[in-house]
Amino acid sequence: MRGRFITLEGGEGVGKSTQIRALAAVLAERGIDVVATREPGGSTGAEAIRALLMEGDDDRWDARSEALLFAAARADHVARTIRPALERGAWVLCDRFVDSTRAYQGAGGGITDADIMMLHGFGSLGLLPDRTFLLTVSAAEAHRRLAARDAAGADRMGSKPADYQARLAARFAEIAAAEPQRWRLVDADAPATAVTAALLSELAEWLS
Amino acid sequence: MRGRFITLEGGEGVGKSTQIRALAAVLAERGIDVVATREPGGSTGAEAIRALLMEGDDDRWDARSEALLFAAARADHVARTIRPALERGAWVLCDRFVDSTRAYQGAGGGITDADIMMLHGFGSLGLLPDRTFLLTVSAAEAHRRLAARDAAGADRMGSKPADYQARLAARFAEIAAAEPQRWRLVDADAPATAVTAALLSELAEWLS
Repeated sequence: MRGRFITLEGGEGVGKSTQIRALAAVLAERGIDVVATREPGGSTGAEAIRALLMEGDDDRWDARSEALLFAAARADHVARTIRPALERGAWVLCDRFVDSTRAYQGAGGGITDADIMMLHGFGSLGLLPDRTFLLTVSAAEAHRRLAARDAAGADRMGSKPADYQARLAARFAEIAAAEPQRWRLVDADAPATAVTAALLSELAEWLS
Repeated sequence: MRGRFITLEGGEGVGKSTQIRALAAVLAERGIDVVATREPGGSTGAEAIRALLMEGDDDRWDARSEALLFAAARADHVARTIRPALERGAWVLCDRFVDSTRAYQGAGGGITDADIMMLHGFGSLGLLPDRTFLLTVSAAEAHRRLAARDAAGADRMGSKPADYQARLAARFAEIAAAEPQRWRLVDADAPATAVTAALLSELAEWLS
């Protein structure tokens, strides 16, 4: 039986990677074969492309080249990591997927959603998650977490101003609202253990 | 006045880079601002992507990831090198362009021509050369040149067997035949100086 494909989405510092780790641990305890991965990256080729995307100046790539590089990395990740895992029955937990490209480019990149989905259709044969969680935080909490992260040194994607983060959150909410059967919104201002419990309750139908 | 965009196409070892150099020298003597470039590469970002495409094992990338990486490199090359040069009135001479992707992928990559042109439409807004020269050599001459090159060490793209080179030549001929106003076929079995003269005669209309 094919495994479940679950993605976590949201802005910087909402706790996606923490929740992926927690969720992977709980599912593994239940005897589920779990692959925890992330984008951009998640396969040897995609990690090499990730380096091109995350390092260097803000204007290193124009929006079209950047969209093609994200699509190339995702195509490799899907072909080499995600599809093989799902086909052997593993559950795949992924930190960001095509919806991040849609939100980030849509919030400021100037590439249409139709073009991003066209590239995804070509590169990854249009693979979509079975469930996508949007982790949302209040503006005050987002500000607090970003400040803590910036102090530790941000990469090319994480060093955008606050109004950009607000546009990004609005774009994520819009994408989620258009496809309610796939998306679940989770309040990530709550303590990490409460967030994990909320995620698990939304997966209950597949865990019985 | 916008400059002319001229590309040279053909299999490995047909003399494209030799002819680009010769042509650039003659045009510069005539007072033309010339930019000689190549693909994949030709801009800082595209050269970084070139390293991902040309190094490593034959199966490093699946066909879809590879097509997206070529499109990303080309988009950067067009945006950062080719369009700015054409707009300031320079002539751009390019060793390979989108037609190489069409021929190589079409000859064995399993990607449709429509998909390659769709990616080119997105990434490079469908830019096509004003003139494309297909340098053709006889099978015997191609074999002789490839053997000499292999002795010097071939890269990931240049180390394919002879029947692949034949399929590639057939695919180039087919692409050229479909767009006769843009393409000119040039017999590259001839001495290099005769080939350069043939190229120049086909550019005479723009040189008067």
